[in-house]
Amino acid sequence: MPVSVLMPWLDIDLPDGMHAHLYDGDGPPPEHLEEIEFYVMPYDRGPNPARLLDRMSRLKVVQSLSAGVESLLPWLPPGVRLANGRGLHDLSVAEHSLALIHASQRDLPRWFAQQATGSWARAHTRSLADSRVLLIGYGAIGKAIERQLVAAEALVTRVARTARPAEDVHGIAELPALLPQADIVVLIVPDTASTRGLLGAAQLAALPDGALVVNVGRGRAIDTSALLAETRAGRLRAALDVVDPEPLPADHPLWRVPGVIITPHIAGGSASFHPRARRLVAEQLRRFAAGEPLLNVVV
Amino acid sequence: MPVSVLMPWLDIDLPDGMHAHLYDGDGPPPEHLEEIEFYVMPYDRGPNPARLLDRMSRLKVVQSLSAGVESLLPWLPPGVRLANGRGLHDLSVAEHSLALIHASQRDLPRWFAQQATGSWARAHTRSLADSRVLLIGYGAIGKAIERQLVAAEALVTRVARTARPAEDVHGIAELPALLPQADIVVLIVPDTASTRGLLGAAQLAALPDGALVVNVGRGRAIDTSALLAETRAGRLRAALDVVDPEPLPADHPLWRVPGVIITPHIAGGSASFHPRARRLVAEQLRRFAAGEPLLNVVV
Repeated sequence: MPVSVLMPWLDIDLPDGMHAHLYDGDGPPPEHLEEIEFYVMPYDRGPNPARLLDRMSRLKVVQSLSAGVESLLPWLPPGVRLANGRGLHDLSVAEHSLALIHASQRDLPRWFAQQATGSWARAHTRSLADSRVLLIGYGAIGKAIERQLVAAEALVTRVARTARPAEDVHGIAELPALLPQADIVVLIVPDTASTRGLLGAAQLAALPDGALVVNVGRGRAIDTSALLAETRAGRLRAALDVVDPEPLPADHPLWRVPGVIITPHIAGGSASFHPRARRLVAEQLRRFAAGEPLLNVVV
Repeated sequence: MPVSVLMPWLDIDLPDGMHAHLYDGDGPPPEHLEEIEFYVMPYDRGPNPARLLDRMSRLKVVQSLSAGVESLLPWLPPGVRLANGRGLHDLSVAEHSLALIHASQRDLPRWFAQQATGSWARAHTRSLADSRVLLIGYGAIGKAIERQLVAAEALVTRVARTARPAEDVHGIAELPALLPQADIVVLIVPDTASTRGLLGAAQLAALPDGALVVNVGRGRAIDTSALLAETRAGRLRAALDVVDPEPLPADHPLWRVPGVIITPHIAGGSASFHPRARRLVAEQLRRFAAGEPLLNVVV
């Protein structure tokens, strides 16, 4: 009897002895859920994909395509393995960071506003080249951001939780000395006890006038009130894909501060995710069929 | 008697025997123009800097900070050497190209519009990673663009006027076969007889649905009417720093086509220009003082 796989695409070559059923998370759930042994959950489709789990009595593996799976754990049936989508979104997040930085440095909001009125008024802008960028968070995403910053001839200083002198990575404890030298700060840190409020009033005050604060990690790494005060005063600029709280309420004053760009936590959701997700799933199915250990196992 | 230099900054170390006077192009012209032997013209300040030339009776060298100096030639007194600013703007133009591409691929106009209303509505976007980019124009700027595209994991195909197989550069004659494979076309070609109308109706029609046309070279390389038709139909997208005509009239329909981004020919005018301009000027003054040949001599 073939192994039944439920997944959001049907254009992946399956190992012998596997049969795929389609579920993209939007339509009605497929029939015969009780036959499914390997479930590749549709990405970013709200709670419906998880609600199917308790109807899959033969389920052995859940492959999530998200990096974070905390919200999925309560739905996971006992004895079922869970693998996450670590790495699939790294390049998308890195790319969005560059989009936010370029947009801020090259004044894109100004040009888009002028476009709406048909104005050809010209002006010089900042640049990313030669800018001193403090990159806080030096994991896979941080390294992808760095490659693109270096190609743009920005000057990158690496910061992680603990110093790693062999890799030229500074520790967070050195921030007081590093912040005054930064034209741009990029935060790509997870939400942990040590990153909450990492950039508070004192840290923001240490940045030079006109510095740009970029956050593509987790909103709580920045004290929103302190950032609001510094940007409202026109002293700092910001480009944020994550904020605290999320969603940012429609009447929150941060939405409308000149020099602040906000995108609604969409850095990870771009097309570059799809081929990487397919490659991971094909490899996981191969491993499952061959009885080899899966990648990215959480539980 | 020291050599008198007129230039837009005074913070450059001068060779022995030189004396600098300041003129940034905005204020009134300085006195004693008749003493000036080396004139570094303020960049992008309209016609006033050139109007001083006929008052400089001892002038030997004009250093322009622009790459194109055609408009300056009629003002140049006989026997005066002219050097241009080739290369100073390359990185700025390359960087702006990336800003335009990222803005289009990651839907920045959508997020900025949502920001104005405080909307947190999320959606997935295209990406630059994995995109097949046809880079038409493979000089210094094209190479700088390529480095940043490759760091973003885009797939670049190089095109220049004539094929250079040893460098993996295709010729313009191959465009009919290349255009159907391009998700993004980047034009960075000068305005010459062979580039005028390079992308006309037939070439644009050869692009796949949804392709992005980026122009950071000269506006006349694209047939504006044909591009207007394709973008109005929603079949192509565009991100343009140069257009035909310039300035684009306020009532031109191209300004307001969804999926079209326009900036007013400002790609070359960013902060990254300044340190490069200072380095060039310092080197030129050193060469002038030492009696060595100048760089970038046009006349």
